[in-house]
Amino acid sequence: MASLRGRSLVSVDELTGAEIMGLLKLAGDMAKAIGFGDSKGARAPMAPLDAILAAMFYEPSTRTRLSFESAMLRLGGQATGFAQSTSSSAAKGESLADSVRIVSGYADLIVIRHPLEGAGRVAVRASKVPVINGGDGAHLHPTQTLTDLFLLQRRKGRIAGLKVGLLGDLRHGRTVHSLAPALARLGAEVVCIAPPQLGMPRPVLKRVAEATGALPPEVTAVDEVVGSLDALYVTRVQKERFEEPGGHQDVVGAYRVDRALLAKAPPEMLVMHPLPRVDEIDPAVDDDPRAVYFEQADGGVPVRMALIAAMLGLHDLPRVTVEERPLNALTPVADVTDHCDNDRCVTVHEPGVPPEFVTFAGETVCAYCERPLREGG
Amino acid sequence: MASLRGRSLVSVDELTGAEIMGLLKLAGDMAKAIGFGDSKGARAPMAPLDAILAAMFYEPSTRTRLSFESAMLRLGGQATGFAQSTSSSAAKGESLADSVRIVSGYADLIVIRHPLEGAGRVAVRASKVPVINGGDGAHLHPTQTLTDLFLLQRRKGRIAGLKVGLLGDLRHGRTVHSLAPALARLGAEVVCIAPPQLGMPRPVLKRVAEATGALPPEVTAVDEVVGSLDALYVTRVQKERFEEPGGHQDVVGAYRVDRALLAKAPPEMLVMHPLPRVDEIDPAVDDDPRAVYFEQADGGVPVRMALIAAMLGLHDLPRVTVEERPLNALTPVADVTDHCDNDRCVTVHEPGVPPEFVTFAGETVCAYCERPLREGG
Amino acid sequence: MASLRGRSLVSVDELTGAEIMGLLKLAGDMAKAIGFGDSKGARAPMAPLDAILAAMFYEPSTRTRLSFESAMLRLGGQATGFAQSTSSSAAKGESLADSVRIVSGYADLIVIRHPLEGAGRVAVRASKVPVINGGDGAHLHPTQTLTDLFLLQRRKGRIAGLKVGLLGDLRHGRTVHSLAPALARLGAEVVCIAPPQLGMPRPVLKRVAEATGALPPEVTAVDEVVGSLDALYVTRVQKERFEEPGGHQDVVGAYRVDRALLAKAPPEMLVMHPLPRVDEIDPAVDDDPRAVYFEQADGGVPVRMALIAAMLGLHDLPRVTVEERPLNALTPVADVTDHCDNDRCVTVHEPGVPPEFVTFAGETVCAYCERPLREGG
Repeated sequence: MASLRGRSLVSVDELTGAEIMGLLKLAGDMAKAIGFGDSKGARAPMAPLDAILAAMFYEPSTRTRLSFESAMLRLGGQATGFAQSTSSSAAKGESLADSVRIVSGYADLIVIRHPLEGAGRVAVRASKVPVINGGDGAHLHPTQTLTDLFLLQRRKGRIAGLKVGLLGDLRHGRTVHSLAPALARLGAEVVCIAPPQLGMPRPVLKRVAEATGALPPEVTAVDEVVGSLDALYVTRVQKERFEEPGGHQDVVGAYRVDRALLAKAPPEMLVMHPLPRVDEIDPAVDDDPRAVYFEQADGGVPVRMALIAAMLGLHDLPRVTVEERPLNALTPVADVTDHCDNDRCVTVHEPGVPPEFVTFAGETVCAYCERPLREGG
Repeated sequence: MASLRGRSLVSVDELTGAEIMGLLKLAGDMAKAIGFGDSKGARAPMAPLDAILAAMFYEPSTRTRLSFESAMLRLGGQATGFAQSTSSSAAKGESLADSVRIVSGYADLIVIRHPLEGAGRVAVRASKVPVINGGDGAHLHPTQTLTDLFLLQRRKGRIAGLKVGLLGDLRHGRTVHSLAPALARLGAEVVCIAPPQLGMPRPVLKRVAEATGALPPEVTAVDEVVGSLDALYVTRVQKERFEEPGGHQDVVGAYRVDRALLAKAPPEMLVMHPLPRVDEIDPAVDDDPRAVYFEQADGGVPVRMALIAAMLGLHDLPRVTVEERPLNALTPVADVTDHCDNDRCVTVHEPGVPPEFVTFAGETVCAYCERPLREGG
Repeated sequence: MASLRGRSLVSVDELTGAEIMGLLKLAGDMAKAIGFGDSKGARAPMAPLDAILAAMFYEPSTRTRLSFESAMLRLGGQATGFAQSTSSSAAKGESLADSVRIVSGYADLIVIRHPLEGAGRVAVRASKVPVINGGDGAHLHPTQTLTDLFLLQRRKGRIAGLKVGLLGDLRHGRTVHSLAPALARLGAEVVCIAPPQLGMPRPVLKRVAEATGALPPEVTAVDEVVGSLDALYVTRVQKERFEEPGGHQDVVGAYRVDRALLAKAPPEMLVMHPLPRVDEIDPAVDDDPRAVYFEQADGGVPVRMALIAAMLGLHDLPRVTVEERPLNALTPVADVTDHCDNDRCVTVHEPGVPPEFVTFAGETVCAYCERPLREGG
């Protein structure tokens, strides 16, 4: 049986399709155990678990931190950590690696959120215990992707064959960059719906094509496709991404999910959102049975319970047969003498982390932040 | 038997007199169980409780948060949450209702502290699980009132018939606005002791009169009444309330509790204070056996244990016979087209919360912040 | 058998040599119980402990706070508290003593970190429960010293007879001020290695001499002595201590521990550091088996477990025979009318704390911050 015991998780790409589906199945068992979507009385009592989760949050993220802590507590374990980077150690100039190494002596598992891209990979290398990447800047947030997939699997009974529309700011939206390739390799169909200036980045499109054999369709009008979707995944359109005043309002207006849009959608189409939402979804649709974003958020707890339990070796992963369309492995690129030119990359700020590059969707990208090297090596 | 299972608590006014007295009795049992006022060795071991309290503190309040967390831990449960509003979600523009809804998927009970008046009511409406108002701006703080009543009941064996002097800044003191009507309906006599400019607000006086049939006496000199009191409840006089320099010092001087004042007080009179105190009580009286403010603070743990246990359905409320003098119910006022004009009211800041008004002590007040509508509806 | 039940700990000086060695032995048992340095599978399950640790951290210190919380959780207990001084109570002008008194009603044990020197002593006097000083400004940090001693005892099997070099900024380094006298009275030999302007303060040197009968040797070049040491204890050289630009770099350069220095050191010499390190130790030596600073940091958990367990009365101290060279007791100095002139001393800021002075190494020092009185009393 597959096991994640002792492994870390920086990116969903590190998991095989069978491991992902096994985690979702285990998350379903966890959901049942905590009476998820049930009356509270149905909860099975948990045995105490002699394990500590340390949450190292260098930038605040209430929902991610609380869902991890809640997951650990629901498993019977304990949680400690910090909620923002006012740590005297960082102020004194300590490296991220040293800080992680030390905290790894206090806990059995670490979840780290850090503003620098690639910080999760640095943490994994420094830690004595397994590490979960809880978000590294604008880069990766694998447990969000697992939570998204869990909702689909739970509500639709499958992922393969679903048609999922990704809507909004696909250029900057971290969640969709991980979700699109994951959907593709698990057999779902992806449709990108965005204004031209906020389209899905080329490398992500190519990554999807690795699995499916073709670039996913890109449309600008949600009306065109909403009638054919199994799920509509909405993302936040951030005001600060627009240079011209008013540009933000125009886009939000055109991509806002409201009752008028839902009138054109199939009766079983799910409306998803990683939350927090601001103006992208009219609160008037919260009562529509297709609006599942709060249930989606609730799923973060059983999903993280499953992941933690698997990494601590409490459970093997249930065996699930998956017809996976695998992504290309990221192959190391030798002889690159350049440094990563992404100033949000951890290699630029952390001492003692030599540059490394890999091939990703045909391009040479930094092994930490996965940003393409501007001019080649 | 009465039960609070599944109920929320925004205001003490939502509890009947029997429920209040039942909670105080249950708090007494809890106090015994944790060896309150006893040697530590006397504590009964708690069985593990498979429940999580989420503390959502949008402004810091060490003592309230710690006493809630301590209460939950003493019950065998677990606590998580945040201690101040640096949450990225709030920064990203998420509504309070959305934040509460999501956290309610991570926990079995929420305690919320928020700077806006009426925030507790918004939280109750958004949450899947019971919510306790841990203080909403200058508005309500019901567990403080229960803690105050617990001390009186514990030390005096009763509340009915006691004569309680409320001293200091009664105009701005949140705690006395809840305590005075609660004392009145449980049969105690209230005396207001304050300088003219810091007197008890008219609606609170009228609320007391609803229960007792007469407005409570108001005096300006503590010497006049201290000899006849069962308890003297001291509140903080805040420097920032005074426009003229020196005005603060004059008032603090006249209303300071010191050895000279206590020499005029009965030997059994209790000196209470919600704490923190600054200059209102001379530390030299801390050793006087009548100074019970620290014991009062200690009572916050068993009181919150009782409340949590009752709301989680772990305990029914003990049956207590109370001769209650009930307050008038707050009746909805229809056809008010105005908005609340209190700029600290949650309805002014939170999207999607339509104005609501109720009748309180004969006045039309906002259903959220309970401030009178300036010019009628 | 010796017991620390109900006792507080402000300074290592309050412990006898037998108590220190008993704590280290108990810490060894704790280390075994949590599988320290072992595979995780070896951990013995802990029984739940019905006790709460409150961490009152008025300035952030991630590693100290997390290691205390981890220790309490590993013992089966619970932890609560605050991580920085944004407490509304402090902002409202509450005294430290009042805050501690109140929190002591919520917990069974307090650990306090405060920027003012002597704050630990104020906390002990105000608290109903035992208090551990988790660092009071630049003054004392006793659990760091115990952690340092634990590493030596664990790796060398003894402390008596070891030759320990203290390297770096010995003038401002809080850790070495406690460690040096502790080593001396347990029979170790201390060598001070520092640039002239950053030498060990005279009172600490005299304190060492109280135990050993002679002032410890002071050298400026680490090369001279490194070949004869059992352990080299490195401290941070802080940039802000230097007035002239470049002075910092010169000193760091001369006192940096790198491969070249280790080539001259004995094969069994331990390289220790309280961490965080910045430039004092080249990361290239992390892989040297003599570099034990991370193992040293890991030891913070079993050491704090032992201390907490002893103070809560869960364990008596194992009996250990120690040939102690005792330090002089601090004798109260009467008739000092002066105030402490150290503006970081808690007596200068906290109301209601009268000045007290004691004799320390032949000098009149403040009983709180232990700084010498400038001009006598």
